[in-house]
Amino acid sequence: MAASLPARILARPAFENAFAARAFVRAMLEFEAALAHAQAAEGLFPGDHARSIAEACATIALDEEELVAEGRRHASLAVPLVAALRERVAASSPAAARDVHRGATSQDVLDTATALCLRPCLDEADRALEAAVRALALRAREHRETPMLGRTLLQPALAIPAGLKIARWAAALAADRERLAEAQSVGLAVQLGGPVGALEALGAKGPAVRHRMALALGLADAAPWHAHRNAWIDLLDRAGLVVLTAGKIARDVSLLAQAEVGEMREAPPRPGVGGSSSMPHKRNPVACAQALAAATRIPGLLATLHAAAAGEHERALGGWQAELAVVPEIAAALGGALDFLETIAGSLVVDAQRMRANLERFGEPSTVHPEAVDEALAGLAAYLT
Amino acid sequence: MAASLPARILARPAFENAFAARAFVRAMLEFEAALAHAQAAEGLFPGDHARSIAEACATIALDEEELVAEGRRHASLAVPLVAALRERVAASSPAAARDVHRGATSQDVLDTATALCLRPCLDEADRALEAAVRALALRAREHRETPMLGRTLLQPALAIPAGLKIARWAAALAADRERLAEAQSVGLAVQLGGPVGALEALGAKGPAVRHRMALALGLADAAPWHAHRNAWIDLLDRAGLVVLTAGKIARDVSLLAQAEVGEMREAPPRPGVGGSSSMPHKRNPVACAQALAAATRIPGLLATLHAAAAGEHERALGGWQAELAVVPEIAAALGGALDFLETIAGSLVVDAQRMRANLERFGEPSTVHPEAVDEALAGLAAYLT
Amino acid sequence: MAASLPARILARPAFENAFAARAFVRAMLEFEAALAHAQAAEGLFPGDHARSIAEACATIALDEEELVAEGRRHASLAVPLVAALRERVAASSPAAARDVHRGATSQDVLDTATALCLRPCLDEADRALEAAVRALALRAREHRETPMLGRTLLQPALAIPAGLKIARWAAALAADRERLAEAQSVGLAVQLGGPVGALEALGAKGPAVRHRMALALGLADAAPWHAHRNAWIDLLDRAGLVVLTAGKIARDVSLLAQAEVGEMREAPPRPGVGGSSSMPHKRNPVACAQALAAATRIPGLLATLHAAAAGEHERALGGWQAELAVVPEIAAALGGALDFLETIAGSLVVDAQRMRANLERFGEPSTVHPEAVDEALAGLAAYLT
Amino acid sequence: MAASLPARILARPAFENAFAARAFVRAMLEFEAALAHAQAAEGLFPGDHARSIAEACATIALDEEELVAEGRRHASLAVPLVAALRERVAASSPAAARDVHRGATSQDVLDTATALCLRPCLDEADRALEAAVRALALRAREHRETPMLGRTLLQPALAIPAGLKIARWAAALAADRERLAEAQSVGLAVQLGGPVGALEALGAKGPAVRHRMALALGLADAAPWHAHRNAWIDLLDRAGLVVLTAGKIARDVSLLAQAEVGEMREAPPRPGVGGSSSMPHKRNPVACAQALAAATRIPGLLATLHAAAAGEHERALGGWQAELAVVPEIAAALGGALDFLETIAGSLVVDAQRMRANLERFGEPSTVHPEAVDEALAGLAAYLT
Repeated sequence: MAASLPARILARPAFENAFAARAFVRAMLEFEAALAHAQAAEGLFPGDHARSIAEACATIALDEEELVAEGRRHASLAVPLVAALRERVAASSPAAARDVHRGATSQDVLDTATALCLRPCLDEADRALEAAVRALALRAREHRETPMLGRTLLQPALAIPAGLKIARWAAALAADRERLAEAQSVGLAVQLGGPVGALEALGAKGPAVRHRMALALGLADAAPWHAHRNAWIDLLDRAGLVVLTAGKIARDVSLLAQAEVGEMREAPPRPGVGGSSSMPHKRNPVACAQALAAATRIPGLLATLHAAAAGEHERALGGWQAELAVVPEIAAALGGALDFLETIAGSLVVDAQRMRANLERFGEPSTVHPEAVDEALAGLAAYLT
Repeated sequence: MAASLPARILARPAFENAFAARAFVRAMLEFEAALAHAQAAEGLFPGDHARSIAEACATIALDEEELVAEGRRHASLAVPLVAALRERVAASSPAAARDVHRGATSQDVLDTATALCLRPCLDEADRALEAAVRALALRAREHRETPMLGRTLLQPALAIPAGLKIARWAAALAADRERLAEAQSVGLAVQLGGPVGALEALGAKGPAVRHRMALALGLADAAPWHAHRNAWIDLLDRAGLVVLTAGKIARDVSLLAQAEVGEMREAPPRPGVGGSSSMPHKRNPVACAQALAAATRIPGLLATLHAAAAGEHERALGGWQAELAVVPEIAAALGGALDFLETIAGSLVVDAQRMRANLERFGEPSTVHPEAVDEALAGLAAYLT
Repeated sequence: MAASLPARILARPAFENAFAARAFVRAMLEFEAALAHAQAAEGLFPGDHARSIAEACATIALDEEELVAEGRRHASLAVPLVAALRERVAASSPAAARDVHRGATSQDVLDTATALCLRPCLDEADRALEAAVRALALRAREHRETPMLGRTLLQPALAIPAGLKIARWAAALAADRERLAEAQSVGLAVQLGGPVGALEALGAKGPAVRHRMALALGLADAAPWHAHRNAWIDLLDRAGLVVLTAGKIARDVSLLAQAEVGEMREAPPRPGVGGSSSMPHKRNPVACAQALAAATRIPGLLATLHAAAAGEHERALGGWQAELAVVPEIAAALGGALDFLETIAGSLVVDAQRMRANLERFGEPSTVHPEAVDEALAGLAAYLT
Repeated sequence: MAASLPARILARPAFENAFAARAFVRAMLEFEAALAHAQAAEGLFPGDHARSIAEACATIALDEEELVAEGRRHASLAVPLVAALRERVAASSPAAARDVHRGATSQDVLDTATALCLRPCLDEADRALEAAVRALALRAREHRETPMLGRTLLQPALAIPAGLKIARWAAALAADRERLAEAQSVGLAVQLGGPVGALEALGAKGPAVRHRMALALGLADAAPWHAHRNAWIDLLDRAGLVVLTAGKIARDVSLLAQAEVGEMREAPPRPGVGGSSSMPHKRNPVACAQALAAATRIPGLLATLHAAAAGEHERALGGWQAELAVVPEIAAALGGALDFLETIAGSLVVDAQRMRANLERFGEPSTVHPEAVDEALAGLAAYLT
């Protein structure tokens, strides 16, 4: 099924591609090629077997619909993929064919492929977060002394520097970015455990093979995580935190963009954007909608991830399969959040005059302390150079 | 984005199609055609305008990728669809073009299209549930006197007739089916409210137009539900209940299918199904995995639906958009549940001998009362004729 | 544990009492007394046994802390309760003691007690909803022609009658009320199934005993629902829908109560309410906070309920126990929603002048159609007499 | 409201106490005392004012029910607490009374009090996790060569050393423990921001005051986190991961404890535990039920936390209040998980003979590699000395 159109318009194209069928199949084949190379390097079978396998992985054309149809019959995409790959290798090298997928199991392929598809999303998140923090920190400094109403429980409270609000956004994103990078270094790992996670078929070479694969695939090395998923869940939880911060910023911006408030708004990239099918003059906060929709989805998506965690024995029945299906959607939510952050970082409109007017009308006399902005920005020095 | 492959192998093909891009676009165009016809019938504009619009709806070819790209810029698929449709109609009838989408707003199109795409899924659910109840009720009657261990807290308790367990499954599905049908009759409704839900552009004719559309589209008539979604949520909640019952049955079957228990199992449609990529001889409970994965997803999906419900004013920002994206996934979970139910209804294997052996070994002396099965089946008489 | 203070300040006192330890123990004892009377009435044991048991139920004093401590050791409150009750009865009538809890199991007591505690909450919800619908429908009629800005995606759209917004709230609550009552008539049921749900110890009299108990306890009669919980879940889902509607109304009111908008607000019952610890002059929307907090909790609470549904065999391990713990919290959320609805129904402040001013400043020229209010109120005639 | 009895029997007494009303009030008063001392130390007011305030904090007796009743009227417990404290201080020192709560706001008190109540729970979790890892690692080493069936998708797969399964549990808990400690060092922080998070009333001394408070209270120092909650959420997410691991272990143990499998079980602390109200001879896996119930609740509880995160402006309306109510329940789930881990660590029964018998009957010939156990334990050396 193509993702539904309503889901697609909330998605970030690069993230759609990251988990597209083609990309996922490629990732599964990358796993098989890396597995073969690593075993050959450890002397488990001849190097030309590995080369034959890798050659087949590079050139085999798999029909997505056939893969899905057959995958359904096994509740595993790996079964038909491995069968097709083995057949392909057998055509040129029957001996090498026996070494296809050797020692591995479906979950090894699928977990690793999922990690490989997620990686570019996380890399892009890191870059987009860095840019957003930098841009927002600059805007915060710019509005170091601009007074605006602080608002609590949706009521006017005391004045704050507009820069303080923006600096807090930036600091939150910077902290999210650090947390995400840290979790990625541990949780974005190769999976190699074999049928029951004991890597039994590779004997003493198991850990060395896995280590080689991790290096080759650009993933962390880790003990088999087929049945204990917390490093992985922690990584996805933290991707979720990025989405929640983006949602919080979008909440603020969209409230400030109400016509009656008018203090900030997202500036659309070009005229005509954000229109309505019935009121063409209307300008909708499209990027905010995207971020808020993503933030609305995150609690339910992470809940599924968490619910799937307490799985049965050496491979869960149902839970693990649900987890795999949910990861691309967590990535999609992350992509939506990044789209919003890029819009905001690039073109947030701040109306200092309106801020002053609202403060005079609805606030009470109070002075703002720009030092609070400086303190909030103190931890972001690296972004402000 | 194509739905990820891991999600696709849990999906039911007909349900994939129901929410495919092509089907969703067709549903949006159905809405526009029905809207035009209904307004013409109410004398709001000439009948040939409606015919021009309907003709364009029937023949216009829309590029999915363009629609998505433009839809993203407006957070609405309806904006580009209506623009393209209007342009198309204008080519043959400029006067009719002004009546395209008249009185309606994006949400009208999108909510109605979503309801139209959901309808075949619900119809199929009704049929599949009926068949499953019938088949299971028959199996229950067949095992009216077969004793098996009742088990509580995963420990052996007293004996029950195997038929009682199966009859309870059947009765639960029958009740789910009734609840779903009832909610469908109210909650699967046309949406027509115009920009702010007051149907203002249609004047006194608004309700009559909406009623005509409901009839034409095969949906319930309902007051605009743009901002109050509970009839719709109730419908989806009840679709979720079907998935949970399937999940409960799959839990039981998969536990009974443990080699050490061996009392029931899903019989795969043909040899070779349920294989493993590493242990070809192994037979996995593929349909159970599908149902349990669906049941694992439902709590998070419904949570998103519920979280989106408390939206802002006359159209929510973010929440509504998230809701639209989540509906096809609820349908997908329902589809997975139906696949399982069909498998079970068609081929549940019951090993009465193993039941007796386990009962003797792990249970305590107790007699079973077939009357309990009769009582459990009493409400299912309609299915047993 | 006392519920945490932060949870308590969001709770409705009557709902706290409904699930207080004392009330829950009383409900468990009501079950045991009704069970004894019903069995005696069906001739399963002498009437004086039932009277001895009922007398003990009416007079026994149980120490909450002992009950909890012992209950923990069995993962069941029923075990120590039944033991204490049996001992108490034995003191006066050893023969009757053997008939205590006869034929029943822990889950029978606990499910029924939970239903009994929920009943006053649902009854109170019904009354509060009726009052809220009536009050809001009257306010809607009063503001049939008051123009205000309709707002979509948090931006000004076209004008609507203020009465339309209020009428839609009222209609949503009325529909929620009906749905809840309907589900209550089925799902608020006695539980009587015995150890494995087959009511085996009562032989042919089981259904008759259960029916008598249902009548005596004021609950619906139902087949044992120990393992299939959907009628019960449907009831709680629908209680959740009430909370979501209250949350939606609170969302609207709190947005309209922003100082910059100023079109509606909750009027606190008396001066000094809604103050702040740091800004005593500030008036916070306390009832809105309560409703929005309740609506924030509902998705997660229902998700737990749904996750617990796919339990194992004849009594789930872990899931059912979690479900029991979650029901009082769903009730608490419902109570918070009712508090808000009562505040709003009694004292919603509508500032028609400010509505007109905002409309002129931020809207575009448009007329409102009071007929839309009439249509929205049409279904509420019964509330308006 | 007392927490419902069904919730209480799943709770750990020490964790009940940690969030009891008395403890929460004490924590709020600790905040006020620390705030006064820190400001006096920074020269913001005389030291004897601080002493008067601290003396009052140490001796004031607050009526819980009055606090709750008044707190409800303000949606804040801090309002009545501060008022009572100020009155008490005023009785002895009117001058000092003006310095009560100076510069702070309700959220400062409530967030800090919540963190203070959570701290002993986390400390206890750390100790219990250490003990569980140590005990399980030893059991793993003990069963380094004991063969048992590995099981995937609830079907028999290849043999593994029983020690490998146990070692993986231990390693998962050790990783959870590290993650939790790391998040605690950042996220268990004092909150001090004043009405809008700018700490405006303390001028340049704000950060220094906060730093002193953090030291005095034993919490981390942190920039005001009133509106950006991710460090805090990350901490609670990671507490949730502990519960999920406990749930996974309980899943495995309860499946292995099925009579038909019989390979492991929790050993109850003494005879008579785990009984049934209807089948006294039955032994239920009570600790597993507790852990699985906790794991069933975690997804919904964290979902609420996540949903509350995208709050409005400088203090959220509804979301923050819901978050505060949910934290004690996350702690309760953690407590339930620890109870289970202690039971398992102290008394897990492993039936090696039954493992061999099942392997022979249901498995296929395969040898186990104890080296996999060594590898899994390699990271746990610190626990094995």
